[in-house]
Amino acid sequence: MVKMLRCIVVLTALVVSAHGLDNGLALTPPMGWMSWERFRCNIDCKNQPNDCIGEKLFMDMADRMVEDGFKDAGYEYVNIDDCWDLKERDSAGKLQADPDRFPSGIKKLADYVHSRGLKLGIYNDFGTKTCGGYPGSLGHLEVDAKTFAEWGVDMLKMDGCYADVKTMPQGYSNMTKALNATGRPILFSCSWPDYERASKIQPDYKLIAKNCNIWRNYIDIQDSWDSVLKIIDYYAQEQDTLAAVSAPGSFNDPDMLIIGDFSLSVEQAKAQMAMWSILAAPMLMSNDLRTISPEFREILLNKEVIKINQDPSGKMGKRVMQTQSHMEVWTRELSSNALAAVIFSRSQSAPAIFETTLENLKFPTTSKGYSVFDVTDNKPLGNYALNETLSFIVNPSGAVMFKATPIA
Amino acid sequence: MVKMLRCIVVLTALVVSAHGLDNGLALTPPMGWMSWERFRCNIDCKNQPNDCIGEKLFMDMADRMVEDGFKDAGYEYVNIDDCWDLKERDSAGKLQADPDRFPSGIKKLADYVHSRGLKLGIYNDFGTKTCGGYPGSLGHLEVDAKTFAEWGVDMLKMDGCYADVKTMPQGYSNMTKALNATGRPILFSCSWPDYERASKIQPDYKLIAKNCNIWRNYIDIQDSWDSVLKIIDYYAQEQDTLAAVSAPGSFNDPDMLIIGDFSLSVEQAKAQMAMWSILAAPMLMSNDLRTISPEFREILLNKEVIKINQDPSGKMGKRVMQTQSHMEVWTRELSSNALAAVIFSRSQSAPAIFETTLENLKFPTTSKGYSVFDVTDNKPLGNYALNETLSFIVNPSGAVMFKATPIA
Repeated sequence: MVKMLRCIVVLTALVVSAHGLDNGLALTPPMGWMSWERFRCNIDCKNQPNDCIGEKLFMDMADRMVEDGFKDAGYEYVNIDDCWDLKERDSAGKLQADPDRFPSGIKKLADYVHSRGLKLGIYNDFGTKTCGGYPGSLGHLEVDAKTFAEWGVDMLKMDGCYADVKTMPQGYSNMTKALNATGRPILFSCSWPDYERASKIQPDYKLIAKNCNIWRNYIDIQDSWDSVLKIIDYYAQEQDTLAAVSAPGSFNDPDMLIIGDFSLSVEQAKAQMAMWSILAAPMLMSNDLRTISPEFREILLNKEVIKINQDPSGKMGKRVMQTQSHMEVWTRELSSNALAAVIFSRSQSAPAIFETTLENLKFPTTSKGYSVFDVTDNKPLGNYALNETLSFIVNPSGAVMFKATPIA
Repeated sequence: MVKMLRCIVVLTALVVSAHGLDNGLALTPPMGWMSWERFRCNIDCKNQPNDCIGEKLFMDMADRMVEDGFKDAGYEYVNIDDCWDLKERDSAGKLQADPDRFPSGIKKLADYVHSRGLKLGIYNDFGTKTCGGYPGSLGHLEVDAKTFAEWGVDMLKMDGCYADVKTMPQGYSNMTKALNATGRPILFSCSWPDYERASKIQPDYKLIAKNCNIWRNYIDIQDSWDSVLKIIDYYAQEQDTLAAVSAPGSFNDPDMLIIGDFSLSVEQAKAQMAMWSILAAPMLMSNDLRTISPEFREILLNKEVIKINQDPSGKMGKRVMQTQSHMEVWTRELSSNALAAVIFSRSQSAPAIFETTLENLKFPTTSKGYSVFDVTDNKPLGNYALNETLSFIVNPSGAVMFKATPIA
């Protein structure tokens, strides 16, 4: 009986893996904006017309992305998260946007977002209900995939509330097939491994990477530095497993950038940006681009940091060093034999000097050493042999990021 | 045997309490600047001349306090913390400032600080060594008190590393006597109850308040929001004990303001300022006033918040409400029957509406209600009857502070 069951599981896995994601998207980590962390499930458009989940919010953000330099920097997706629809499907079984909050409908919103040169994302749930209590997609995967394609949606985040976790490998793979079947390229974001982790099931990341462009591994980010640290802890703990599946078209997703919200200081914002870049993470901001202050906008628009995030290799960085003074170093291999490093501080004390050599960080030998560039502060640091000392001042709860390119 | 011991303890306490602090200082919570949290024990003046514990640092801060509005706002003390002296006393048994770092000596530094209309604070330790390993005052209390008075010092923080905690009640009281004996009014900051707490000894706050102008109750603040929260937790837990001894001349000290350092966001900085104000806490900044950004300076210079901190009643506020949405309300009685309140958010989510009435917050009945003023944003909110609803939007890890004055 046990053997037979195992046999069925193996067969199922084979069947599933034969139908991978086939959309050619996310060759580098997707960049954009997403409503959840900053605006949650605020549906009170009567009293809070600017802050509720409604078409105005997404049009406003699209406008800001275009007019304030975010689009030019690479931010592309405008993503609706939970709480956008009515609590009931229509008579044909289709999801329907709340007409009070989205009076023009999602198709018109997609048209608007496209007219601004951006793409639209939307949200559903694999189970019977979304986390916020809206209709789930269980038993409706095909019709929902078709609906989203008809509306002109470009990205889908499928959450996993109110669902049987054990059915997710097959179920999410069915959604992949349904999305492929629409003929429209829709970037697919899966919450599947996060729910497996929470249920103490080891995610099958090969299968996940075949079926999803990006996937959440860990709990939702909250507006706190503590939350950022917890996520980084998890990535460090699981880095060998996670880095093995990071590649063009398939990326681990540590959740949204909270830069410009209420909790992160400027130092901490630079540190989140650097870490998400070294991790080859999706850069999905959740903030209010209408009121964000200039120092945070500048951090989000740092071209050199974004360039590392978007490196075509798609490789995820790993932690290679921890010190007793609460510093750690993460490194990432880039294309053309270049490397990036983040010196990340968990100190709660004063700025501290950190000295190391590229050799200590396990950079490969080159004939002439490396040219080193400080991408946080956008300045060249000079040429360094492998055993030459590099010295940085690192602020508490801050980070320094540099790129090292072999000298030709 | 046990009875006899108890008898001795009671007698000792009586003897001690007969010699209280007699300096007429700290009638309102002291305000100023202190080196520790931001600059620690950095003695490397060769490589970091601007950031090391040396006379330049304290002269720079005195200059900034005068020229950038801090003195006008009430900030007065410029306080040297640990690591200012040589590791050996001189041949006469006196402490001596490190001549490389304080080439002019402490007396000249005091003269300079006084010439700018400010006051100078210094640091010693009750035990055999300071926490940083410099000479302790055990067995040298009188000579050290005299030395500080001769130098023109205006405030003394006496730490409690490398000491027998059980001897602190008597020993700190001896230092009080030694300070009184100099004839110079020297504000006395005691770390005694913090060390008792750490040793699980219940501090005798009546005796402490008799002998100290301010005293540390709890662990050192660090550069993190988490540290601020832990301190507030402790104050909430002990509020009845601590509030009972807060009065003109004697204040609980939750440690330094870290506003303008590396970890606090603007919201969190406003929240620390509001909480320290409602607690009638000393306002001792530890930051770099030479590079602090304007939004943090503005928070530290908020006149209305400072006015509440400096209210002549000297009463400490208490937590009167906690909600399931991670909000709490603290209130403080002010002079002239006015009250102040802080709505403090521990949320890590989105801004939230908080509604209450003054009645809910246990404000006393008045014939005509209260005139309410938002001191965080410096704007009148109008007149409110006790049962009328007040509504605020409170940001995650932020605070709103208001003052309510009975309508005449």
